[in-house]
Amino acid sequence: MATQDPSPRPGPVSYRGRSSLPMASSNTDDREVPQFEPFQLMPRGPPPLKEFLDIWDVNNLNDINKKQHHTDLYANENLIVRRAQEFQIRITFDRAYNPLQDQFLLEFVIGRYPQVSKGTYIPIRIEEERPQSWRGRILETKDNMVTVGITATPDCIVGRFRVYVAVITPYGIRRTQRDPSSDVYILFNPWSEADSVYLDDEAELGECILNETGVLYHGEVKDISVRPWSYGQFEYGVLDACLFVMDKASMPLINRGDAVKVARMASAMMNSRDDDGVLVGNWSGDYTYGVAPTAWTGSVEILLNYANSGMPVCYAQCWVYAAVFNTFLRCLGIPARVVTNFYSAHDNNGNLKTDLIVDEDGQVDKERTKDSIWNYHCWNECYMARPDLPQGFGGWQVVDATPQETSDGLYRCGPASVYAIKHGQVCYPFDAPFVFAEVNSDVVFYKRNKNGTLEQVKVDKTHVGRLVLTKEIGSDKSRDITSQYKFPEGTEEERTVLEKAEEFGCSRVQSTLPPADVELRITVQDVMVGNDFQLGLEFKNLSELKRTASVYISGNIVYYTGVTSSEFKFKTQKVKLEPFEYKKVTLDVSSKEYLSKLVEQANLNFIITGRISETGQIISAMQVVALHTPKLSVKVSGSSKVSGESFVTVEFTNPFKYNLENVSLRVEGPGLMKAKSKHYSVIPPNSSLTWTEPFSPWRPGPAWLIASLDCAALRQVYGHVEVNIQSSEGGL
Amino acid sequence: MATQDPSPRPGPVSYRGRSSLPMASSNTDDREVPQFEPFQLMPRGPPPLKEFLDIWDVNNLNDINKKQHHTDLYANENLIVRRAQEFQIRITFDRAYNPLQDQFLLEFVIGRYPQVSKGTYIPIRIEEERPQSWRGRILETKDNMVTVGITATPDCIVGRFRVYVAVITPYGIRRTQRDPSSDVYILFNPWSEADSVYLDDEAELGECILNETGVLYHGEVKDISVRPWSYGQFEYGVLDACLFVMDKASMPLINRGDAVKVARMASAMMNSRDDDGVLVGNWSGDYTYGVAPTAWTGSVEILLNYANSGMPVCYAQCWVYAAVFNTFLRCLGIPARVVTNFYSAHDNNGNLKTDLIVDEDGQVDKERTKDSIWNYHCWNECYMARPDLPQGFGGWQVVDATPQETSDGLYRCGPASVYAIKHGQVCYPFDAPFVFAEVNSDVVFYKRNKNGTLEQVKVDKTHVGRLVLTKEIGSDKSRDITSQYKFPEGTEEERTVLEKAEEFGCSRVQSTLPPADVELRITVQDVMVGNDFQLGLEFKNLSELKRTASVYISGNIVYYTGVTSSEFKFKTQKVKLEPFEYKKVTLDVSSKEYLSKLVEQANLNFIITGRISETGQIISAMQVVALHTPKLSVKVSGSSKVSGESFVTVEFTNPFKYNLENVSLRVEGPGLMKAKSKHYSVIPPNSSLTWTEPFSPWRPGPAWLIASLDCAALRQVYGHVEVNIQSSEGGL
Ligand SMILES: [Ca+2]
Ligand SMILES: [Ca+2]
Repeated sequence: MATQDPSPRPGPVSYRGRSSLPMASSNTDDREVPQFEPFQLMPRGPPPLKEFLDIWDVNNLNDINKKQHHTDLYANENLIVRRAQEFQIRITFDRAYNPLQDQFLLEFVIGRYPQVSKGTYIPIRIEEERPQSWRGRILETKDNMVTVGITATPDCIVGRFRVYVAVITPYGIRRTQRDPSSDVYILFNPWSEADSVYLDDEAELGECILNETGVLYHGEVKDISVRPWSYGQFEYGVLDACLFVMDKASMPLINRGDAVKVARMASAMMNSRDDDGVLVGNWSGDYTYGVAPTAWTGSVEILLNYANSGMPVCYAQCWVYAAVFNTFLRCLGIPARVVTNFYSAHDNNGNLKTDLIVDEDGQVDKERTKDSIWNYHCWNECYMARPDLPQGFGGWQVVDATPQETSDGLYRCGPASVYAIKHGQVCYPFDAPFVFAEVNSDVVFYKRNKNGTLEQVKVDKTHVGRLVLTKEIGSDKSRDITSQYKFPEGTEEERTVLEKAEEFGCSRVQSTLPPADVELRITVQDVMVGNDFQLGLEFKNLSELKRTASVYISGNIVYYTGVTSSEFKFKTQKVKLEPFEYKKVTLDVSSKEYLSKLVEQANLNFIITGRISETGQIISAMQVVALHTPKLSVKVSGSSKVSGESFVTVEFTNPFKYNLENVSLRVEGPGLMKAKSKHYSVIPPNSSLTWTEPFSPWRPGPAWLIASLDCAALRQVYGHVEVNIQSSEGGL
Repeated sequence: MATQDPSPRPGPVSYRGRSSLPMASSNTDDREVPQFEPFQLMPRGPPPLKEFLDIWDVNNLNDINKKQHHTDLYANENLIVRRAQEFQIRITFDRAYNPLQDQFLLEFVIGRYPQVSKGTYIPIRIEEERPQSWRGRILETKDNMVTVGITATPDCIVGRFRVYVAVITPYGIRRTQRDPSSDVYILFNPWSEADSVYLDDEAELGECILNETGVLYHGEVKDISVRPWSYGQFEYGVLDACLFVMDKASMPLINRGDAVKVARMASAMMNSRDDDGVLVGNWSGDYTYGVAPTAWTGSVEILLNYANSGMPVCYAQCWVYAAVFNTFLRCLGIPARVVTNFYSAHDNNGNLKTDLIVDEDGQVDKERTKDSIWNYHCWNECYMARPDLPQGFGGWQVVDATPQETSDGLYRCGPASVYAIKHGQVCYPFDAPFVFAEVNSDVVFYKRNKNGTLEQVKVDKTHVGRLVLTKEIGSDKSRDITSQYKFPEGTEEERTVLEKAEEFGCSRVQSTLPPADVELRITVQDVMVGNDFQLGLEFKNLSELKRTASVYISGNIVYYTGVTSSEFKFKTQKVKLEPFEYKKVTLDVSSKEYLSKLVEQANLNFIITGRISETGQIISAMQVVALHTPKLSVKVSGSSKVSGESFVTVEFTNPFKYNLENVSLRVEGPGLMKAKSKHYSVIPPNSSLTWTEPFSPWRPGPAWLIASLDCAALRQVYGHVEVNIQSSEGGL
């Protein structure tokens, strides 16, 4: 047998023989085109070009174009315009342009191997209509100046183009020299009906494209918390960082005009799995080598760090992935928002089942219960047509950058049509069964018999996907969009949808169990970290006979992923119920019991399970308590004018009876100040810190300053303040 | 801003906080279960277990089971059975089994974290019916022996299970010890109606599951070549290597019962891109660090090498990927075949367009023509239901392991329903638009004007996907399955399908060009490498006027990917045609012109383009000439009996006028001999080599010995012989 020594691994194999050229998959790579390109062998000496137009100046008219194209907010000196909308370029020649005699072209070029048929080389002849090509027309001729109006096709590549003006002579083509400052960025255009990302709602675009700040929802469904985030899609360097992400993914340029493909690529690239993408996930609580996921205040620092180093940034959990993804999408011009799904089923490949196993006495079998339901999960929605699917599946699409164990074995998810999810049409790409399961899984309680076999004792079909929230347009309020994912519980439509999804392999649990005749509910008030509190156990006997419930009460410290870190409280209790009796039992929980064991987001999960002596039926209830954290105070003083000196002051008082150690603070605000951070080695009990930083706003209008405080013992402490910056001349 | 030093990269992050357990994604990982598992705290001293059953012996009845399950061909000592079909296990206890008093279980366990609800721990109680669970029943009781019949569910995980017999006592569970030789492999079952890979055709199963050898088609559509291949799916170690591939992909065990997911995972894992999969692609002609793609004779060596080293094997081109993928699928029990598509469009993301650019005189613009059409391309079809799609898309599915620049940016393709491709229903997963383009693209001829703009001059809608072939069932003949991919050219159905596909973004070229009134065709005979030959240029004037054609004749050495290596012949010619005249012009090609420049598969591509003086119309024709290579002679002598001594003799004569240098020979035959290779530093002109190797067959029945000869100057020299091996006792 031929021996093959595997140790000296050959390098990457050349494209030779495989294709004529490597696939163009970088916006950064370029190649100079010649300043003079002769048509044939030239006679000796320079060609007699004197009589032909010479180009003196090309003006991209940034101010006019950027205003019209909604790109004036980008902190970027180059022209940025959108597809399918005319923009203007003013060319100054050495003499007046004569249409009857002079011929010139505008050339837009992207990447290393420009080709007309790939859309990477676009020669625009003035006043010439060609199907599926960019349009050019003369808007004005004045002295030696010609103002040309150019309209990119609605499906053209999105990225940074090099621009040349070329004059055609009988001897060859005379061109302008490459000038990076004249490069033009072309973006998606949600304002244009012709573009696949068209969104016909100016207010919604104000939020989903133009708003640089927002809020993210977390906590528990009955006690929702909110935190601010700086998306910063217009900040200096962010647009280039987004293009870098596509280059790093080696995404073929030819695909970069397709919003579906761009969104799918980015869902993979936001996480570092497989492809050294933007963010490294870490749920362990040990963030020694990076920034704790809870400590970030915005996306800008993360994207710039990634673009500068080319290395994944540490660390992220779901809302960090979603927030940075949101920046990416808005920056390129794809309408996007972050949504939070409360009680999200995970890693289950669309099999719609999450298992909880109790033993014969009704006590949770911790060793065998391996599934968890996330208290909440953040993902993104982006708005686009779906030309790859039948009619009706356009609109909002789920994309999810948090790495999951999906069926495809790849750490990417979506775009999956929200409409398709709602209607159980999970046979269409991409990853619809997975998203369907995230909002529709059943929680199955099993009793494990001694011989190892399992028996279903309860199926909860309403726990998962309880609420889907996003930020309200133009307001800080929340907007319940659950009804866009699901029909109301118990309706005919809901049943039909679940049957439809089952046809495509999303099999639900078949349950023919009679409901138990004793009901159990847990109630709790809002609780601040460090406070004692009471849990209410409400029993309701629905039968006309006496009932005795023997219950196990288990209080657990959990991660937001639902994974248990430790059990801090355990108690058994017997409750006797008369026929039809309602009884409330209270349980005292003191801060001493849980405080030293808290992890991460200060979530407690109470699981009550038990057995009714008279019937053998198993009863159960679960309740997550997301402890509230103290707030940061953020205040602004000073001029509040563009370029004026202002100050932000962040204040915090340690409300606990113990030291907070290794505390990091962070503050930033798009248009106001770049992210700054500060470190405190210790904050003693009841002691306060005050941190003041000067800043100088560079843009007028309303804006947010967002601050966070983070240490191992206390996470998710946030604050923000809105400021209205006046332009330096006075009025806005 | 917080600084983050990217250089010390943290290791892989733990699953802590993210999930309760890591996802079980390895069949190799295991964990011992205790031999005695007490139910509660035990009294001091060993429990009084004397009165309960003790297990003396467990017999997997390999001979009976393997025959019934069509797994007797596997060179593997363990029991191998298929899903949804009963197999027998015989247990010997220390005394007779008493059903009224004794309780025992059979436990099937896979992976490190066995769980009932994930299908990784299967406890089977005898005579107990449970929905969605494996069935166990007593077939026979005799003395101390009990024969149990076990039926795995039709969707259970495919892989290697550990098996325990467990006796239940009031004190706990008493188990057999782990014994690797009693491990049971469970495979897909195409013979069972209940299995998703069910194929109701015994003859087809004989080919697509049981045949260990086959042929692959290549060459040119009018002059097809064929080569033998040893799939060897039953050879020693191959089944374990296939399971290793899934482990290497970290494919969650829970997905390994799903044929769609297994096929998709494997389409990624057959190539080394992204995931260090099985084979490294190389089309460059430089195979210094491995085996030339043309030199392999079978899959076994490749898979064993991969499983042993864990490193990708060098090198592959499309037919090697397809052939090894075929072994993988057949080995696990998924019906599979290799197909060849002649004139396959590639790397074009489903945009259905391949461009050829000519200048204003009609000469090919080599610098700007970057697309290539592969002379042929091999992929796989596998047979399965598609529960993830609406009704009607089951059956044969395209999977393609050759790494391509797909829209998804990932090197995997399929499964895509062949029925969906034929009907233009490309909106269903996976990668249907890409496969659709491979068989349906247009070839567009552009004329490039001096100012850089392009003008369509001809669209050939019939060149691509001309013929799809696979091996005939139970014969060496070929089977034309083009009609399973496309409706006949020019039919109403064809037009409807193309419109349908267009709705989903597969946009064809809109052409309103009048057909040229001069037709041009190229004809050629079959040509042996090293021979001179003649090319016929047939002109037909369809008009009633005189026509003058000025043509450029370009002869090129090409790779099978259609990429040009060099131009070896160039000629211009003027042809005058009377009204309605037919004229044939011949062109002499001498071996001297091409021989020294040949690459790889000895393909020549003639492109004739030109211009009709009277009308300005562009005419064009293309013809690939796949030069024939000499054959290897393979002969067998000796006993031709199992375990008897036989000999294989490979003979070859160098027919050329030059030395063949660094020649490697290879021979193998499943059931007969493992792959052996031999190296010759030089074979002078007209000189012969004779290589004889002894072998000792280990299986009766018909089998093939397959040989190859390969060197840089001459590739694709093959031969094979069929032998009928008699069992050692005499008759078969
Ligand atoms: Ca990734
Ligand atoms: Ca791969």
